[in-house]
Amino acid sequence: MTTQAFTGVLSPVLTPFDNDLRPNGRKLAQFCKSLLAEGCTALAPFGTNSEANSMSVEERMELLDQIVAAGVDPRKLMPGTGACALSDAVKATKHAVAKGCGGVLVLPPFYYKGMSDDGFYRFFSETIQRVGDARLKLYLYHIPPQTVQGISHDLIERLIKAYPTTVVGIKDSSGDWKNTEAMLKRFPGFGIFAGSEDFLLANMRAGGVGCITATGNVNAGMIRKLYDTWQQPDADQKQAHISVVRKTIQRHPMIPSMKSLRAAWSGDAAWLNVLPPFLPLAMEQGKALAADVAKLGCKGPEMVPAE
Amino acid sequence: MTTQAFTGVLSPVLTPFDNDLRPNGRKLAQFCKSLLAEGCTALAPFGTNSEANSMSVEERMELLDQIVAAGVDPRKLMPGTGACALSDAVKATKHAVAKGCGGVLVLPPFYYKGMSDDGFYRFFSETIQRVGDARLKLYLYHIPPQTVQGISHDLIERLIKAYPTTVVGIKDSSGDWKNTEAMLKRFPGFGIFAGSEDFLLANMRAGGVGCITATGNVNAGMIRKLYDTWQQPDADQKQAHISVVRKTIQRHPMIPSMKSLRAAWSGDAAWLNVLPPFLPLAMEQGKALAADVAKLGCKGPEMVPAE
Repeated sequence: MTTQAFTGVLSPVLTPFDNDLRPNGRKLAQFCKSLLAEGCTALAPFGTNSEANSMSVEERMELLDQIVAAGVDPRKLMPGTGACALSDAVKATKHAVAKGCGGVLVLPPFYYKGMSDDGFYRFFSETIQRVGDARLKLYLYHIPPQTVQGISHDLIERLIKAYPTTVVGIKDSSGDWKNTEAMLKRFPGFGIFAGSEDFLLANMRAGGVGCITATGNVNAGMIRKLYDTWQQPDADQKQAHISVVRKTIQRHPMIPSMKSLRAAWSGDAAWLNVLPPFLPLAMEQGKALAADVAKLGCKGPEMVPAE
Repeated sequence: MTTQAFTGVLSPVLTPFDNDLRPNGRKLAQFCKSLLAEGCTALAPFGTNSEANSMSVEERMELLDQIVAAGVDPRKLMPGTGACALSDAVKATKHAVAKGCGGVLVLPPFYYKGMSDDGFYRFFSETIQRVGDARLKLYLYHIPPQTVQGISHDLIERLIKAYPTTVVGIKDSSGDWKNTEAMLKRFPGFGIFAGSEDFLLANMRAGGVGCITATGNVNAGMIRKLYDTWQQPDADQKQAHISVVRKTIQRHPMIPSMKSLRAAWSGDAAWLNVLPPFLPLAMEQGKALAADVAKLGCKGPEMVPAE
């Protein structure tokens, strides 16, 4: 295993859509810069909370072009490049590596259920070999709440053995701390991210490298503060508090909820747009939520920490 | 509701891949013609058993071009055009309509779980409106074993009411006869296909229009015979027999199993190729399976009924 390509607090970047539901690359690039200023150490565009799988692979690649062209450092980007189709995963991954991205986050193929570890191994191995680029740093994306079938520890071991300088980490979005803990014990040095800030402190204490979390989109500053100071005596209180903020945001389905906050904070109603099968919230709902999280100290862009 | 665009025995056409895992359009077109000769009344390329979601939307559209160019009547084609991404579903559906396809089979978006009926309605409705073509005949694809979330009866009712000449039928791959039966009662005149020949006779007796079944790829003649003669006194025996054939084929995972049969029958080892996350069987396994189904009267292409 190698030096960590990524550590800290990453956010799966929300994707802004225009009213005709087309992704807006200019706004996305601006938003990436805001998130880095608000506290994210790096970014994971085209994740679950980016509605990535509701966009075509071409749309995602075009957006990545726009983000990088706008001046976002590609070494700070870990775009999601997974897909059900091997050809799509290879195309998107090749493109990300060519753009200089520091890594990629790759879902297992998620249409067919009941697949074997051998079948999943074949998918990841073919992807890596077809990309065929030593610069590739691949993070596995374990998220059984959406894909149903996750990535087993035996499969991880096999992939690390076969591709030790390529398969360098994992995002654990199982919501099951026992799973993260078992991986931390079995794979020391592997770049293990908690999939939610709820487990950030536990993950840091057990040897993890940070978290890749949805709410980085709206509460990066507070989460980053915990990451930076996790060894201080008040870390447990900080952890408890950011978990309360998260719970408040989860009053609505996560993606429309966070977008409604961004809409309320910016006054830009286009932030409410979500792709089907999601449904948008109303600006009023965003304002009500903004008022509630403000009471918890989560006030949006103005909370950028002074340098 | 309108006259049925499709009735009878349809097969989700297996996709032949070369050894480099690229789909082979020339072989697929030939195979489509074979299946129509073997007994299929029409074809549903790019279904679950076609490994459609393991291919990119572009690969599927190119294959459709090749099938139609090779002379397969597009009115006999109901390609799968569903996708997680609205933009992909719209692109593939528009393309199929432009090619003159008799209909399309559309999955709900299947990445996110726990979506609302309103969210699914929004997806189908946006797809139909963005295609914006009166020639579109859309069949819903209910397959919870893969998508987890299926298509509720309330959603079907709402879609039929909003788009009565467009949303004309459904493939029920729930494997739950009670679900099919309830739809047949609630939606008379809707084009309801059983998702497996196991329910063909029950479906015909209750007012359904046929079946769209994986094993149409290897046992079309026998299934078609039951469809043509379902009102005759020996229909129950015929039904029982084709279900025994199906069970025999299911000894292995369905897609590699059927491909191994096609490989054994044709002597073409490339038929064994499957995309990850599936794993190929060996020619020997295909030969053993061919011997076993032959004992049941399922002997491959030579069983083409004499005209």
